[in-house]
Amino acid sequence: MKHILVIGAGRSAASLISYLLDNSTKEGWMINLGDINLELVNERIGSHANARGFVFDAVNEEQRQVEIEKADIVISMLPARFHLLVVKDCIRFKKHVITPSYVSEEMHALDQEAKDAGIIIMNEIGLDPGIDHMSAMKVLDEIRSNPENKLTCFESFTGGLIAPESDNNPWHYKFTWNPRNVVLAGQKGAVKFIQEGTYKYIPYHKLFTRTEIIEVEGHGKFEGYANRDSLKYRSIYGLKDIPTIFRGTLRGVGFCRAWDVFVQLGCTDDSYTIEGSENMTFRAFFNLFLAYNPFDRVELKLMHYLKIDHDNPIMEKLTWLGIFEDTIIGIPDASPAQILQYMLELKWSLEEDDKDMIVMWHKFGYQHNGIDKEINSSMVVKGDTDIQTAMAKTVGLPVAIATKMILNGTIQSRGVQLPISKQIYEPILKELELYGIAFLEKEVEPKLYEK
Amino acid sequence: MKHILVIGAGRSAASLISYLLDNSTKEGWMINLGDINLELVNERIGSHANARGFVFDAVNEEQRQVEIEKADIVISMLPARFHLLVVKDCIRFKKHVITPSYVSEEMHALDQEAKDAGIIIMNEIGLDPGIDHMSAMKVLDEIRSNPENKLTCFESFTGGLIAPESDNNPWHYKFTWNPRNVVLAGQKGAVKFIQEGTYKYIPYHKLFTRTEIIEVEGHGKFEGYANRDSLKYRSIYGLKDIPTIFRGTLRGVGFCRAWDVFVQLGCTDDSYTIEGSENMTFRAFFNLFLAYNPFDRVELKLMHYLKIDHDNPIMEKLTWLGIFEDTIIGIPDASPAQILQYMLELKWSLEEDDKDMIVMWHKFGYQHNGIDKEINSSMVVKGDTDIQTAMAKTVGLPVAIATKMILNGTIQSRGVQLPISKQIYEPILKELELYGIAFLEKEVEPKLYEK
Repeated sequence: MKHILVIGAGRSAASLISYLLDNSTKEGWMINLGDINLELVNERIGSHANARGFVFDAVNEEQRQVEIEKADIVISMLPARFHLLVVKDCIRFKKHVITPSYVSEEMHALDQEAKDAGIIIMNEIGLDPGIDHMSAMKVLDEIRSNPENKLTCFESFTGGLIAPESDNNPWHYKFTWNPRNVVLAGQKGAVKFIQEGTYKYIPYHKLFTRTEIIEVEGHGKFEGYANRDSLKYRSIYGLKDIPTIFRGTLRGVGFCRAWDVFVQLGCTDDSYTIEGSENMTFRAFFNLFLAYNPFDRVELKLMHYLKIDHDNPIMEKLTWLGIFEDTIIGIPDASPAQILQYMLELKWSLEEDDKDMIVMWHKFGYQHNGIDKEINSSMVVKGDTDIQTAMAKTVGLPVAIATKMILNGTIQSRGVQLPISKQIYEPILKELELYGIAFLEKEVEPKLYEK
Repeated sequence: MKHILVIGAGRSAASLISYLLDNSTKEGWMINLGDINLELVNERIGSHANARGFVFDAVNEEQRQVEIEKADIVISMLPARFHLLVVKDCIRFKKHVITPSYVSEEMHALDQEAKDAGIIIMNEIGLDPGIDHMSAMKVLDEIRSNPENKLTCFESFTGGLIAPESDNNPWHYKFTWNPRNVVLAGQKGAVKFIQEGTYKYIPYHKLFTRTEIIEVEGHGKFEGYANRDSLKYRSIYGLKDIPTIFRGTLRGVGFCRAWDVFVQLGCTDDSYTIEGSENMTFRAFFNLFLAYNPFDRVELKLMHYLKIDHDNPIMEKLTWLGIFEDTIIGIPDASPAQILQYMLELKWSLEEDDKDMIVMWHKFGYQHNGIDKEINSSMVVKGDTDIQTAMAKTVGLPVAIATKMILNGTIQSRGVQLPISKQIYEPILKELELYGIAFLEKEVEPKLYEK
């Protein structure tokens, strides 16, 4: 019997845990699931014979070490800031460990220690980061395997969206993941990328106006805005001299220009609190960012300030959200971003039976003997239920499959790892297809700049 | 003989030191002037009999304490971050100390210690802060002295500008003070003020479009943008329930909209460095912030991106600065803000015989028995020479006069102080008039909102 310790039973762990339970008898696994919230643990494992649930506090050193020592492998689904605590104990007790999160500097520094302990610390093996790495490396490696090919462009976009059948609002958006991250998206430093050999920088206040339209075959058009730092992927993917590299986030068409209203007003700011926010209305809140005039309406001031015509669809989106309404905020000493998030949560929350949808799209440009070529690779996954969401499946299943591969010896590499080698991504992508997580790869007419 | 220790012989200390030297024989003063730069020290004091100059390193604890112990009063004209070192030694050796800088939290916390030591720590007694406090408090106290008056509005603007006779560029601006502060102005957090009882917040990226036109009698129109936090002046000036309080910075008309181009592009950002900045041209630098296209000119991309017509005077300003030119930057690993500053310094530096000009303007709104009244108070000071600039005079002379008043016992208060009490501001404002630093106070027709 192999013992798998899963720490964290939140939404992102649902599909992961289902997979582990479903395969537990065949593979000879015992699943130990700990979370601060016992109710959540019980929801995930029910009365499954191969599972044990318990209350787990990640910062309780004693409990953490006792549980890790008993395990053969540890999966940390905790918020990223807790991973280091877990990983250090895993090194001490020589236990493999997996997280879906980005490798931090501190995590990276543990590489030699992990190798010395004979363990793997597998990171960035969820959706984004995770499936993006694997599906991109697959095509990149294929292109590079032919010495007559020369890569010229890599673009990659991912979006956590609402499925068309559940899309019933003018924003074509609902919160399918952490609302706070959506409100604060793009705020940590200037966006950087490189296009045809030229560096490009976009400040936050211009980010949502610098969008690109992406057409995903069979699913129509989406809007993409740039992620913060595309440049670091040059070294991760071995694309050092590639002239164009760009990563972005997908939204429904029209979302970004309307979101830009909040950015322009300044109400995505989380750095200060609003005096008197508790008894303020949404209408008064938005008026804080508009010039004072005792007569003009908030609506007209906003349209004039941001140069929005009265019949611009942005106005329908804003009105639908209730920004002009007299709803009381009710949160004392709230930051603008907190107030905005509260307002959005009233409107953008998932209803029962709503299905989420993940869209990922890559563009690979290359020259074959000097002739321009382009491959597009796309994946669209919808949620099955409100537990087995597209987000839970795409984050959790790669983690689960990697767990199996480490336990059965298919993955032999040690140290701090990402899923970017063929031995890792190939079997994982293959098994993901069984769960409907599949990429459509297609050679298309290359899109080039024309005079 | 009274010993005055002046630390810092930079540009802002020129008029201060002249005043101290000119009055030294009559008042019985010995001036000890220390600066890291001995040349600067010699320039300031020449061979004056009542002065001693020396190389002084503020972070050298031993030297600092030796010099402070010898003095009767200490004037710190150092950059603000060094004041605390000096002030703590002044408390230890029970010496009065003056700085023109803002009171920091840490400085404020020394109030009781200073009182126990029997000394005054006089702060914010330059131009802004300094003359702004004194000239505002004078009118505020006058209005408040009549119980039938009720203050409704206080607005205050200051600008360090170029005198009309030296104004020969389309920006109507040259650097008369720290260029870095000009480039970074407005970036530290959202602007806050209150207007007719309504809080207003302006994010950085909208700051230079939210301007107000200020007419200063006899000097024409200026443009004002909001300073960061106007709200703290409510408590300093005893204006707790005033419905409108606003502080701002003055520029020539048309400056702010053109400056906003740099803000919108993102090239006032000091938080990251540009790869390859050393061998980059100004033209290529500005192109970093514009969308990639192998054919379109930088000029057209910029006009289109920021919706500027080709005949908008903004374009003349930008072209005059050389933003489209192929001048090599030559600074390795520079931030956008550093590159912008370098470019501006090539064009906005003072030429020989150029005269600077300080403009300060206050608006006081009040009701007298329910009837609206308004007083405007304005000051315009021009530089005499390139040493005795308007900035040096307005920053240094209040410090110098306060030094005299502390030494001769006119100022008796102790602890951490600002020049906001009548016993302090009245004699200082009076003596400043002898140096041409005078306010024109005038009752005007009150400007009210009309439908």
